[in-house]
Amino acid sequence: MSDHLPSTARKPGLTSSAPSVVAAELDPPTPRKRKAPGPRHEDKRVAILRTAAQLFADNGYEATSLDKIADQLGMHKATLYHYVSNKESILYQCLVLSFGNLDAVMSEMEDRSVPPLQRLRQFAHSLALAQNNVFGRCLVLVGSRPLDMMPGGEIRQFQRRLDETVRALIVEGIADGSIKPCHPGLVSSMLFGSLNWVPRWYQEGGKLSIEQVVDSFMDVLTSGIAAPRR
Amino acid sequence: MSDHLPSTARKPGLTSSAPSVVAAELDPPTPRKRKAPGPRHEDKRVAILRTAAQLFADNGYEATSLDKIADQLGMHKATLYHYVSNKESILYQCLVLSFGNLDAVMSEMEDRSVPPLQRLRQFAHSLALAQNNVFGRCLVLVGSRPLDMMPGGEIRQFQRRLDETVRALIVEGIADGSIKPCHPGLVSSMLFGSLNWVPRWYQEGGKLSIEQVVDSFMDVLTSGIAAPRR
Repeated sequence: MSDHLPSTARKPGLTSSAPSVVAAELDPPTPRKRKAPGPRHEDKRVAILRTAAQLFADNGYEATSLDKIADQLGMHKATLYHYVSNKESILYQCLVLSFGNLDAVMSEMEDRSVPPLQRLRQFAHSLALAQNNVFGRCLVLVGSRPLDMMPGGEIRQFQRRLDETVRALIVEGIADGSIKPCHPGLVSSMLFGSLNWVPRWYQEGGKLSIEQVVDSFMDVLTSGIAAPRR
Repeated sequence: MSDHLPSTARKPGLTSSAPSVVAAELDPPTPRKRKAPGPRHEDKRVAILRTAAQLFADNGYEATSLDKIADQLGMHKATLYHYVSNKESILYQCLVLSFGNLDAVMSEMEDRSVPPLQRLRQFAHSLALAQNNVFGRCLVLVGSRPLDMMPGGEIRQFQRRLDETVRALIVEGIADGSIKPCHPGLVSSMLFGSLNWVPRWYQEGGKLSIEQVVDSFMDVLTSGIAAPRR
């Protein structure tokens, strides 16, 4: 199954900033000279992934066949195979796209000139934005379980890095006295649990923006963990 | 499909306190006199549901066939059908069992002699205990989506009541001045998101008990929403 996956996708720490860029990185030039797929090919591929991600999130991964994806796109299944090799590979690429610019965001979290609680709020905003676009919703609602048999484990590795980023901020805040003594792993679990739940109920275009939701959560979380002012 | 479901199970507000009692309620005497199934029948049925819930939670609902459930129990599939009619009905009954004693807990939340923040903590403890037993894990990890085609919607209705219970406590606390002005629905979402995430990472027998996890969460949440002391 892993043969269907382009090799660069297995590297941890994808530094992608926009879906089309990530998609391009997923299909790198091979040592043998091969005509690189043009930008139209890549656009089409991302469009396919977007439709698949929407169907996976709305109807479930198991219930979404390649036939349904092709139907939704008004495309022959044979044409679909020109862009994607199988359902696992589609899901895998959707999950990689869901990372969005989070790799860059994690780097920003190391900037110690900004107070830890403020960085934590920035992180939560970036994470929530990534989780509530079409690819992020797919990751949160479908999860990586259907790919459990795949070697590699970059999805899990990436999620672990997100968790470690939050824990590091908490540890830093406890050390500099801005955060009360607490269990960094449990605070991180609370933050991810709260945010992972949002795509299950949030309706775009409703009364609240994602920013307002995250701000409310972070108001509670940061006043809950902030050290009392001296 | 609903014909497989006993009629009392469709009533909202099951007042069950122990799995075997709930299971008995799921198979009430019919108007025509019929020999009630004996306690051994019920014990066996709950044992089947327990095994099924474990397999659903560990391997996913789609990946768990009736054959696998029968295999795991060392039972012929024909014998299994003596207790349960199909996979949807098994999942439905597991989800109903997952409610445990939460109906009674919701009633206790109306006792205004206990401060709202303290009741909120009690509620979170009861919810977490229910979510981290075998039936609760099944509800959290599988969800009720596979039953979407079933009429009734008691599972969703029950979940809505849980949410309303939390919102009511927040509204009460804002009114009596013990909770800062905040968005009750978002605080509720934060609480459920945090707790729903626990069965995905919590390992029984590890360093932390469920009580410790919930206490940490509630320390953060309640100090985050408590009104400043006057």
